[in-house]
Amino acid sequence: MRTEVVAIGTELLLGQIVDTNSSYIGEQLALTGLDSHFQTKVGDNLDRIVSVLELALDRSDAVICCGGLGPTQDDLTREAIARVMGVPLEADEQMEERILEMFAGRGRRMPMNNLRQAQRPVGAHFIEQLPGTAPGLVCPVSRSDGADGTVDKVVYAVPGVPWEMKEMLSGTILPDLQRRAGITSVIVSRTLRTWGESESGLAELLSGRIDHLDGTGNPTLAFLASGIEGLKVRLTAKGADATAANALLDEEEAEVRALLGPLVFGVDGDTMESVVLELLDRSGMTLAVAESLTGGLIGARICSVPGASSSFLGGVVSYSADVKRELLGVPDGPVVTEAAAIHMAVGAARLLGADVGIAATGVAGPDPAEGLDPGTVCLAVVVGDTADDGRSIATTVRLPGGRNQVRDFSVITLLGMLRRTLIELG
Amino acid sequence: MRTEVVAIGTELLLGQIVDTNSSYIGEQLALTGLDSHFQTKVGDNLDRIVSVLELALDRSDAVICCGGLGPTQDDLTREAIARVMGVPLEADEQMEERILEMFAGRGRRMPMNNLRQAQRPVGAHFIEQLPGTAPGLVCPVSRSDGADGTVDKVVYAVPGVPWEMKEMLSGTILPDLQRRAGITSVIVSRTLRTWGESESGLAELLSGRIDHLDGTGNPTLAFLASGIEGLKVRLTAKGADATAANALLDEEEAEVRALLGPLVFGVDGDTMESVVLELLDRSGMTLAVAESLTGGLIGARICSVPGASSSFLGGVVSYSADVKRELLGVPDGPVVTEAAAIHMAVGAARLLGADVGIAATGVAGPDPAEGLDPGTVCLAVVVGDTADDGRSIATTVRLPGGRNQVRDFSVITLLGMLRRTLIELG
Repeated sequence: MRTEVVAIGTELLLGQIVDTNSSYIGEQLALTGLDSHFQTKVGDNLDRIVSVLELALDRSDAVICCGGLGPTQDDLTREAIARVMGVPLEADEQMEERILEMFAGRGRRMPMNNLRQAQRPVGAHFIEQLPGTAPGLVCPVSRSDGADGTVDKVVYAVPGVPWEMKEMLSGTILPDLQRRAGITSVIVSRTLRTWGESESGLAELLSGRIDHLDGTGNPTLAFLASGIEGLKVRLTAKGADATAANALLDEEEAEVRALLGPLVFGVDGDTMESVVLELLDRSGMTLAVAESLTGGLIGARICSVPGASSSFLGGVVSYSADVKRELLGVPDGPVVTEAAAIHMAVGAARLLGADVGIAATGVAGPDPAEGLDPGTVCLAVVVGDTADDGRSIATTVRLPGGRNQVRDFSVITLLGMLRRTLIELG
Repeated sequence: MRTEVVAIGTELLLGQIVDTNSSYIGEQLALTGLDSHFQTKVGDNLDRIVSVLELALDRSDAVICCGGLGPTQDDLTREAIARVMGVPLEADEQMEERILEMFAGRGRRMPMNNLRQAQRPVGAHFIEQLPGTAPGLVCPVSRSDGADGTVDKVVYAVPGVPWEMKEMLSGTILPDLQRRAGITSVIVSRTLRTWGESESGLAELLSGRIDHLDGTGNPTLAFLASGIEGLKVRLTAKGADATAANALLDEEEAEVRALLGPLVFGVDGDTMESVVLELLDRSGMTLAVAESLTGGLIGARICSVPGASSSFLGGVVSYSADVKRELLGVPDGPVVTEAAAIHMAVGAARLLGADVGIAATGVAGPDPAEGLDPGTVCLAVVVGDTADDGRSIATTVRLPGGRNQVRDFSVITLLGMLRRTLIELG
């Protein structure tokens, strides 16, 4: 079962929009166990869309079209598919009513050209999911098998709006493709998030497992780089049903975790900040941040998690040296030092009344400062009252990249430090 | 002159990497005045790459291949082009030496398979720019013109590493394509950044200009949506040389600015934060921020501009209500009000000793707070001592979208308010 993706829209060719939809669809096809060998982008031109669809149907069994289902004259996907099927378009009264009701329900007047969206090639049917006002299509196509017979192929069409596309893909297209491909097994994947080790380092730690899995072929293990957010270890398992596949994943996850230990900070949707907030919640401690070169990025990232307010109190952005001294109590002298970072963390915790303080101070660049090269960053984590039985750790790191990469790298490195500290404290 | 782009790499089909290169190349081709009707992604498979190249050469005059020029067995672009040209690959001794020297210069041992990169199809030549270790290629191809003659076409190959691709594109490929297409004129574009008006609103304000330009055809004007960052108005002019094209742009920019007034906040690389920092610098005033729902995003965005320290002192992230009250002096009672926002701005300016304070407080969601729906945000700008001749303004906005969009929208809206205030103060 060979599939391919056709993204439709002149704005994609002009680079006004980056085509992330095809990437997403390609990933989902692969995870479903379906081959896809080509992806094509074509503009809003009927002849060219038809030529791309004809070619795709020659070399593949199923084609997923993305975009060009809107209400305007530029939206030509419906016409192109009808032409490839050799049938006319017809208006679907039920769908017309559904679209009219949708507008009425939102208290909006419907422009009449929206009824174009209720048209479908004769013989095609609509995708059940309708998250927006553009219905998707399932269009059966017959093609010669090269001998005397014919072979059944299919063209799907989904809107270019990502969440609409995703709902139709998972709700209708992938299950339909699995059925057509006779895939009765279920493929499930799980991603372990790691931080603190290079790809070759992880490969070394996991070499025994990788050899073993190469032998069995199920589950499989792959590394996915995700920039400064660490490396992902993706486990994919095939089973007779979801329960069986998940049991394989559970087993393999335990093996991998035993080898990687605390390098694994989360699973799937977990982020470093969500994990840190969970650890804080569990310990009942509150957090304050002191930021210099990051300018607020640490706080912003923590607050991106809903419910952050249960343990995150806030922080001080001490961008100027005066603010570091007067507000946070950093002594006179250089401010890119581990001592200054600890003073900042202590100062923020004191000022905001938090149990834990973290701080970042450093040289983001492009110019050096205090005789230090850009990328030199001091990070500190302080827990409790250091005069009593509290604990403070600080480190100096040399981070690569330009100004914004150094800042982003500082944030994840500091959150990683905080995570390890909270784990060690139990 | 029809061009098209072929992106090569299995990781692109699997969605492990989003293909931003093709978008970039498509944009540059359009800005150079060259048509491009198709973009294709294909995996690391020799037969399939060859089939895509053959098709591209059938329907276009020039093909730009991106990716697959590395040193490993997976990197098949050189082989595929040689096959399409009907010639063998040959090693280029000069290039071998250049690559060896490059590794030696970086003090690194060269893996022998890197010499694969010094191969080129007989008749092809290397692109002069060599920012990495993967040389690019210019490969002349002859194709039948459908009658008795032949027509000269060309295949370019560049690495998938974005900065390497960009250097080769601007340094060799675009000028070569212009020469082949007989384009002697120069096309220059300029983007005006706007904030505070919808696309239909801008179109109405500019309707006279749009009609006029539709008549002359040079320069042209286009709207580009850039999400919550406002709308871009892109002016593109064609001239005998850059001076002539820029003169047309200067003239048109003045016309557009006269109609849009302060809606235009910058040009090309300007951002709202860079513009605000410039206005602060010019007035000699310093800035402090107080952030609640944005959690540090405002400060982080301001600090992303190199040199921000000349007027940005820092701020307070007052995520918890206690911090708002105790540190910033917000009175008891609800904290999502315009009065609370003004208190926060005054408090931050006082605490950090700044001339200007700005503040954001609101409900990011997903849940309501203080009886207010998610998206309800209060923003304040305070300049100078409000007890004296200072000035304070506050507003309540209802912002659309989920948690993070509400936060991002709050940042740009507040910075836009600050900009207008600084301009009014002169």
